[in-house]
Amino acid sequence: MQAHSAPLPRTGIGIDTHAFAPESSDGAAQVPLWLAGLLWEGERGLSGHSDGDAVAHAAADALFSAAGVGDLGTHFGTDRPEWKGASGVRLLSEAARIVRAAGFEIGNVAVQFVGNRPKFSPRRAEAEAVLSAAAGAPVSVSATTSDGLGFPGRGEGITAMATALVVAVNP
Amino acid sequence: MQAHSAPLPRTGIGIDTHAFAPESSDGAAQVPLWLAGLLWEGERGLSGHSDGDAVAHAAADALFSAAGVGDLGTHFGTDRPEWKGASGVRLLSEAARIVRAAGFEIGNVAVQFVGNRPKFSPRRAEAEAVLSAAAGAPVSVSATTSDGLGFPGRGEGITAMATALVVAVNP
Amino acid sequence: MQAHSAPLPRTGIGIDTHAFAPESSDGAAQVPLWLAGLLWEGERGLSGHSDGDAVAHAAADALFSAAGVGDLGTHFGTDRPEWKGASGVRLLSEAARIVRAAGFEIGNVAVQFVGNRPKFSPRRAEAEAVLSAAAGAPVSVSATTSDGLGFPGRGEGITAMATALVVAVNP
Ligand SMILES: [Zn+2]
Ligand SMILES: [Zn+2]
Ligand SMILES: [Zn+2]
Repeated sequence: MQAHSAPLPRTGIGIDTHAFAPESSDGAAQVPLWLAGLLWEGERGLSGHSDGDAVAHAAADALFSAAGVGDLGTHFGTDRPEWKGASGVRLLSEAARIVRAAGFEIGNVAVQFVGNRPKFSPRRAEAEAVLSAAAGAPVSVSATTSDGLGFPGRGEGITAMATALVVAVNP
Repeated sequence: MQAHSAPLPRTGIGIDTHAFAPESSDGAAQVPLWLAGLLWEGERGLSGHSDGDAVAHAAADALFSAAGVGDLGTHFGTDRPEWKGASGVRLLSEAARIVRAAGFEIGNVAVQFVGNRPKFSPRRAEAEAVLSAAAGAPVSVSATTSDGLGFPGRGEGITAMATALVVAVNP
Repeated sequence: MQAHSAPLPRTGIGIDTHAFAPESSDGAAQVPLWLAGLLWEGERGLSGHSDGDAVAHAAADALFSAAGVGDLGTHFGTDRPEWKGASGVRLLSEAARIVRAAGFEIGNVAVQFVGNRPKFSPRRAEAEAVLSAAAGAPVSVSATTSDGLGFPGRGEGITAMATALVVAVNP
C-alpha cells in the first residue's frame, strides 16, 4: 500500500480576521496599519491584541496547522504575555522556528487576503520578501476584494486565508 | 518535462458552515453541540440534517476534493437516507474509506474553525485523536475567532475550512 | 537537513467572490450565469468586470499563489484591457500557461464554492471536464451552502475557495 519511500508532505490551513480600528474623532494619531509585514502609511489600522497583521497571522497558523502543533492561541495566547503586542513578522518567525523544532522542513506558505484596502499590488514584492525572510521559506501573498459583500466588502475588516506545506525530516 | 517518477500528491479544500440551533424558550433540552468529533456539554448545538459537526464535515469534504470524487452531497445527500443523522465522525470515516477505495493514500487533513465558542484549546488533543482515528491519518484542528465580524462574530454559527493531501497509489 | 532530492511541491490558495447581478425590473434579458466554466440557463448571473465566474477565478488565483507569481489583478487587471470581459475558462487557461512558463508543473487544483444556487451536483462532471481541459491538469469542484448565514446564505453572491499544488521542474 505504501507507494513512497519518502514521507508525504503535509498541508495546513490558516484563517485570520481583524476589524479595522475605530477612526479617531478628534484627528488624533490613529492606529497604524501593519499588514503582510509592512507599515502602510496613512491607512487605517487593524484592531487586535497584537499588530493585527492578519496576513502574517494566517501564515503562522497555516504552518502550525500543517505540522499539527496547535495554533496561534496555543503558542502566543493570553497565557504567554511575553508575546503581547508582538509584530506579525516576529510571530511568523517564531512559528517557523517551532515547526522546524518539531521536526519539519517548510516547503512554502501562500496567503491571500480579502479586503477593500490597502491597495496591495505595488508592494507585493516587498511584502513577500519580508515574510519569506521571517519564515525562512517562500511566502507568497495575493489580494482580492469581496465585490462589496460581507464584512470585507463593507470595509469593517480584513480576512486572510493561508495554506502551507511542510514535510517531516529524519522521520 | 516530468521531473518526478512518483505521482505528485494532490491537495483538496473543504468548507462547512452551520448555524447554531435556536435556543429553546421553555428550558427544554437543547440540541447538543457536536464539534470536531466531541460532545460539548452545556454548549448550544448546531443545526443541520446531521449532527452539524462543521469540523468533521469540512475534513471529509477536503478529502473528497483532493481525490476528485465529489462532495458531501454526492455521498451523503438526501438521496442517501441511510446517512441521515449520521455523526460527523462516521461521515469522516466513510469519506476516508471512499477515498482509499478510489486509489489514494491519505497524507493528512488540517482543519481550522472560526467561531466564538466553544473554547477549543483545552480539548484539542482529544479532538485530534478522535478525528485522526476516524480518518486513519493525521487530522489537525485549530480554532480562531473573526474578531467580532460576520456571522461567526455575531455568534450566529460556525464555519470550518480544511485542506487535505492525498496521493494516488499504484497509478 | 534536506531530506528530499526532488524539490518539494508548493501549495497555493485562491478566494474569489462575486455578487449576483441585480434583477432586471422590466423583464429584459438578464446577465447570464457563468460558473465553473459552464453557462447556467435561467439562472441569475454574477456581476463583475468579467463573466464573474468565481470558481474559475479562484482556481486561477490558487495557481498563481502556489507558484508565487502574483494574482488575478497582476495578470488580468485594469491595466491589461485585453483581458476585459474574458471568460473564466480563458483566464484559467492563461494562468496555467503563465505558471508553466515560470517553471512549474501543475499537480492539481481543487475548488469549492459556497452558494445557494445553482444546484451544482448534476453538472459536476461537465464542469470538471471543462476546467481540467483549461488548466491542463485535474480540477475538482465541489459545492456547499452556508446554512443560510452570511452573504451566500442571504443569496447576495457566491464565494469560491481553491487550493492548488505545483512543483518546480528542472530546478
Ligand atoms: Zn490575528
Ligand atoms: Zn455540515
Ligand atoms: Zn472573480
